[in-house]
Amino acid sequence: MARPVVFVTDYGLQDEFVGVCHGVIAQIAPDVRVIDLTHAIPRQDVLRCALTLGRATRFMPDDAVYLAIVDPGVGSERRALAVRAASGALLVGPDNGVLSLGWQALGGAAAAVQITSEVVILHPVSPTFHGRDVFAPAAAHLASGHALETLGPLVEISSLVVCEVPGPMTAPGVIGARVVGIDGFGNVQLNVSAAEIAAAGLEGDHLTVSGRVLPRVRVFSDVADAAMAVIVDSQGYLAVVVNRGSAAGELNVTVGSTLVIE
Amino acid sequence: MARPVVFVTDYGLQDEFVGVCHGVIAQIAPDVRVIDLTHAIPRQDVLRCALTLGRATRFMPDDAVYLAIVDPGVGSERRALAVRAASGALLVGPDNGVLSLGWQALGGAAAAVQITSEVVILHPVSPTFHGRDVFAPAAAHLASGHALETLGPLVEISSLVVCEVPGPMTAPGVIGARVVGIDGFGNVQLNVSAAEIAAAGLEGDHLTVSGRVLPRVRVFSDVADAAMAVIVDSQGYLAVVVNRGSAAGELNVTVGSTLVIE
Amino acid sequence: MARPVVFVTDYGLQDEFVGVCHGVIAQIAPDVRVIDLTHAIPRQDVLRCALTLGRATRFMPDDAVYLAIVDPGVGSERRALAVRAASGALLVGPDNGVLSLGWQALGGAAAAVQITSEVVILHPVSPTFHGRDVFAPAAAHLASGHALETLGPLVEISSLVVCEVPGPMTAPGVIGARVVGIDGFGNVQLNVSAAEIAAAGLEGDHLTVSGRVLPRVRVFSDVADAAMAVIVDSQGYLAVVVNRGSAAGELNVTVGSTLVIE
Repeated sequence: MARPVVFVTDYGLQDEFVGVCHGVIAQIAPDVRVIDLTHAIPRQDVLRCALTLGRATRFMPDDAVYLAIVDPGVGSERRALAVRAASGALLVGPDNGVLSLGWQALGGAAAAVQITSEVVILHPVSPTFHGRDVFAPAAAHLASGHALETLGPLVEISSLVVCEVPGPMTAPGVIGARVVGIDGFGNVQLNVSAAEIAAAGLEGDHLTVSGRVLPRVRVFSDVADAAMAVIVDSQGYLAVVVNRGSAAGELNVTVGSTLVIE
Repeated sequence: MARPVVFVTDYGLQDEFVGVCHGVIAQIAPDVRVIDLTHAIPRQDVLRCALTLGRATRFMPDDAVYLAIVDPGVGSERRALAVRAASGALLVGPDNGVLSLGWQALGGAAAAVQITSEVVILHPVSPTFHGRDVFAPAAAHLASGHALETLGPLVEISSLVVCEVPGPMTAPGVIGARVVGIDGFGNVQLNVSAAEIAAAGLEGDHLTVSGRVLPRVRVFSDVADAAMAVIVDSQGYLAVVVNRGSAAGELNVTVGSTLVIE
Repeated sequence: MARPVVFVTDYGLQDEFVGVCHGVIAQIAPDVRVIDLTHAIPRQDVLRCALTLGRATRFMPDDAVYLAIVDPGVGSERRALAVRAASGALLVGPDNGVLSLGWQALGGAAAAVQITSEVVILHPVSPTFHGRDVFAPAAAHLASGHALETLGPLVEISSLVVCEVPGPMTAPGVIGARVVGIDGFGNVQLNVSAAEIAAAGLEGDHLTVSGRVLPRVRVFSDVADAAMAVIVDSQGYLAVVVNRGSAAGELNVTVGSTLVIE
């Protein structure tokens, strides 16, 4: 059986870009299953895509071929990559860091090639849509069993671009947290793990978040309607939530904002 | 062949929640086909999801495993359920009524279990994302052929939460209808069937809807551009429509609004 | 193996219409793969869907069954069609031109039938949802190997409705271009190919677009942040883009607007 392709991009679903890539994959590998992780990564937000990919690997098939495309440098000199992780999973995407948190979650990069094979790449290559002409075909070839090395020459793993994940700023009793995401419910996702909160000595029933004293709760149903609270989200990170409301709206924050937790 | 999973939630597609559940299903049952019924149920609208599920069963494969998640009480004491319908179809979701109109449409509930098996549930269980850790794994196990009883202990069918569907208020010659949905075209879906209109003696060519005299038409193409009309929708219920326009906008109604039909 | 179905509509993803059609296809043909090209065609924009379909065929499997539904005349006398292209690909949809640019891209229409078979059509047929009751079942029957002629009587190919694609207005040194689409990035797609620009003698490094002197660039990364430029898009047509911004917003154009290129 062909390996599944796990597909994540910032293409959105307003256009046919995702569907065209599905078609290209089906042309090359008719029986491949494609799992759309999400196509709503904010435009050109490489870090957000890398984080989403890295956190998702635990829930994806072991033999997955990850196809991750957020590519502000499409058509420039940035390399097109395929990477084999230590786990055996494969990753395909631009060499801008978007794959890096994925391979780190999968045991590290074991081998990497630059995708250059004229057999793999669709011609003429559009300078603006390498997802269709370079990355999707490469993922489909890998999914149908072709070896990594058939895609192009090996490249040094040490030369690959890696995402820097911003950590929280910590001091005894206080943490400066960054908003790394806002989900569709308006929940505000922070770059602070439950362990980091404990390490900063912030162990009480309540936390002060940018001046608001908020209860720490375990589940949404512990929060009164319209009340704000702090929760550990499904990934182990702190989130500020409003039951049946938008915490992001009430806190007036966006991705990249800083919140002080005391 | 594995049974297909029919998947409906209020997760939206802005985040990776749906994709992560697809991954979990593929981990457990690599060859299962997943049919995404919709993930745009309004947030926490259990009744709307139940109605959507109940009305869809007629068009889904007979051997489907329905996975329906709208779960305002996630992490509370509400039970996680798997239900076998009289038709043989299976349903998985929280015990808050979201499945009830599904099993009613499938001949009634024949057996139900609480999902507790440590073999099925993913650990650590997030208190906020049972879709990933409880429901998707349970559906995948059922789809790949495991018996309902392997998921956990039987529960009394009489103890299951059932949705109350609001009926219309009727009197001779007049009906008080509730808006139960507004689709993406702006069509206003009412909780009144064509049969109930006839029973109320409202058989003419026109109906007065909240003071507007509207023609009853069979198809959109019978409606003049920008004109408003009443139609029997694809589910057998009345809807108010505007050809190439939004009836909801013109009537200034939202879900839950009442319209008087005379 | 069943033939894949390539599915494109204006149904949107806010409702369950697309999911219900997937269910109908799976009832009839459980192992058919469905490729969702896009369901975000602007409401009732037959030409846009026809263009999207025609341009996508090159990237879809050769044995695809195209299911394209933008159907303002649903329930009227317009015919329901299934068409075999010279390439062997099949197309299913209303006889309003929506399929025409598809079969033209696939070598022309070789045979066409009107879908009338009582074995194929689901009853009762909703007057408003032929996607579910007529077109999806027909596509599923074709995908699972039934012959075109089993769907209904042959119709004259010369009688089929064909879309007129608006061409640009040209004069020596000047072209009046129409905006045919705006993608999710805000890029403005024009109905002028790179070849037509050359034919009009507009060969320089810059083009004047409605009074703005814009550089012609090959890739997005050649454009300074927030700057506007002209590019040849992934389909070979001119587009006006703003790097990390919306050209449509800055030019204040919508689909159908005219831009003068000098």
